[in-house]
Amino acid sequence: MTDTTTSPDPQQTARAAADAMWPRDRVAQWMDMRLIDVAPGRAVLEMRIAEHMTNAFGSCHGGVIFSLADTAFAYACNSSDRVTVASACHVDFLAPGRVGQMLRAEAHERSASGRTGVYDVTVRTADGATTIALFRGKSHRLQGEVVASLAGGDAN
Amino acid sequence: MTDTTTSPDPQQTARAAADAMWPRDRVAQWMDMRLIDVAPGRAVLEMRIAEHMTNAFGSCHGGVIFSLADTAFAYACNSSDRVTVASACHVDFLAPGRVGQMLRAEAHERSASGRTGVYDVTVRTADGATTIALFRGKSHRLQGEVVASLAGGDAN
Amino acid sequence: MTDTTTSPDPQQTARAAADAMWPRDRVAQWMDMRLIDVAPGRAVLEMRIAEHMTNAFGSCHGGVIFSLADTAFAYACNSSDRVTVASACHVDFLAPGRVGQMLRAEAHERSASGRTGVYDVTVRTADGATTIALFRGKSHRLQGEVVASLAGGDAN
Amino acid sequence: MTDTTTSPDPQQTARAAADAMWPRDRVAQWMDMRLIDVAPGRAVLEMRIAEHMTNAFGSCHGGVIFSLADTAFAYACNSSDRVTVASACHVDFLAPGRVGQMLRAEAHERSASGRTGVYDVTVRTADGATTIALFRGKSHRLQGEVVASLAGGDAN
Repeated sequence: MTDTTTSPDPQQTARAAADAMWPRDRVAQWMDMRLIDVAPGRAVLEMRIAEHMTNAFGSCHGGVIFSLADTAFAYACNSSDRVTVASACHVDFLAPGRVGQMLRAEAHERSASGRTGVYDVTVRTADGATTIALFRGKSHRLQGEVVASLAGGDAN
Repeated sequence: MTDTTTSPDPQQTARAAADAMWPRDRVAQWMDMRLIDVAPGRAVLEMRIAEHMTNAFGSCHGGVIFSLADTAFAYACNSSDRVTVASACHVDFLAPGRVGQMLRAEAHERSASGRTGVYDVTVRTADGATTIALFRGKSHRLQGEVVASLAGGDAN
Repeated sequence: MTDTTTSPDPQQTARAAADAMWPRDRVAQWMDMRLIDVAPGRAVLEMRIAEHMTNAFGSCHGGVIFSLADTAFAYACNSSDRVTVASACHVDFLAPGRVGQMLRAEAHERSASGRTGVYDVTVRTADGATTIALFRGKSHRLQGEVVASLAGGDAN
Repeated sequence: MTDTTTSPDPQQTARAAADAMWPRDRVAQWMDMRLIDVAPGRAVLEMRIAEHMTNAFGSCHGGVIFSLADTAFAYACNSSDRVTVASACHVDFLAPGRVGQMLRAEAHERSASGRTGVYDVTVRTADGATTIALFRGKSHRLQGEVVASLAGGDAN
């Protein structure tokens, strides 16, 4: 159970949820993502495009760009410490990503009601010069709280 | 230029395009995907969910499921040997993927006209028991042919 | 409450739900749609493109094509007599619709689990020659049953 | 051909394109929409939900909400006087629309490069209290200019 006496502040809650998730987020580590910022309904992540992230044509694989956006979405939609998963996602690919580029994904909540939310994520080169992809995700809240359920997992 | 005298058959063309793409497809190797089948407008890939492919909640990361589907999409939409990229993708996540499961993605063309196509990809557990995700991708054809442009790349 | 003793057959249930919905479906009447067929998880509707259904460029307005597809989706996803609404829809427009053409929308269920379903709708010219649009809808089941809730509405 | 000597200003161009489109936009008239504002890459429309716009469950039909959003998208993506059509659209329905409510759709460009653009449209009740739907449209530019091609149509 989340102790709301010690985490009443939305920003603290967002940070606590992210801190519980991050070390268990194997894909975020595998793809060498960095969590730049998290706030209520928001998250910012960065990732540098490595050579092994390319497709046959030598540009960044769409699945890797999606993974970065989807991860930013996950941190934004779990920022209120309620366990929330992706139900559907839509992505428009606007420009190819190139090896060596640092990508930045910024996620923010567009709507939340009942157990459903909609989040927009914009993926740009970190210098802001090029928008690589626009992502929109629909979230579905499950039972349970992020910090409590992941801490419980630790006990095993 | 593709030598249409030696590759006139659509199935041979699809296989030749896939053979040119596969060794250069770094993400397909990185994620240990297997190309099971390719045919005109179609492709089937498999991938086993490894521990490092999970998200914070211990199920397969949406970005990894998307990567498998997107790769199947890429082989299907390049099967006529015209260089084609993803313009937009939509994915519905239906059930979580679990570590150790073999996933199978089957892609097929739903429409193609002008430089645009629509492809459906279904991701199931390889035993067919569970549908993990439904993916729909919109493709955009660029200039050039797959085999010729990748072979040209080799020359350098 | 649905009397399952008298409507045990899925096809009868689908027909009963459609019969309860159709006369109350003001847009279906307004756009002069015809319900051609309904079955468990499936529905087929037709609509002729009228002059007042065009956009500024003289082809069928995307909103009208969407309306036909969305209505087919509604009859398919309510065919088990559980009140169900659209949560999200994606549509790819493939070819323009022309005044005078009869359009046919065929909807079928791709997945259903818990309170969520995914339905595909294909809109073609009724002669089958041209695919006009591909539509995918995500459904969300509410409380209540279609026949009972609409009949209850009548009592007032 | 558009006379760029007399319409060099982007705002004037947007207005001229809208003025050419509006009287020919039969669905906009049929649904009694109002064009509130148009600007480069932007458009605002309103429409009151009438009784004949409802579905079987008595709320505004998704196709009607989509039609309003899609129309706002059309005015935004044609605002540079290049003939542009919808290639694909995604809509998330967030809250039901009720008879008598005035809806307002605000469209703005998120990206444009080559012949492709992405536009976001938010549909709210006109008082701003409730967000009804989030819409994202992908546009595809055809040959020709809006004012010139529609004026040409007049000649017939």
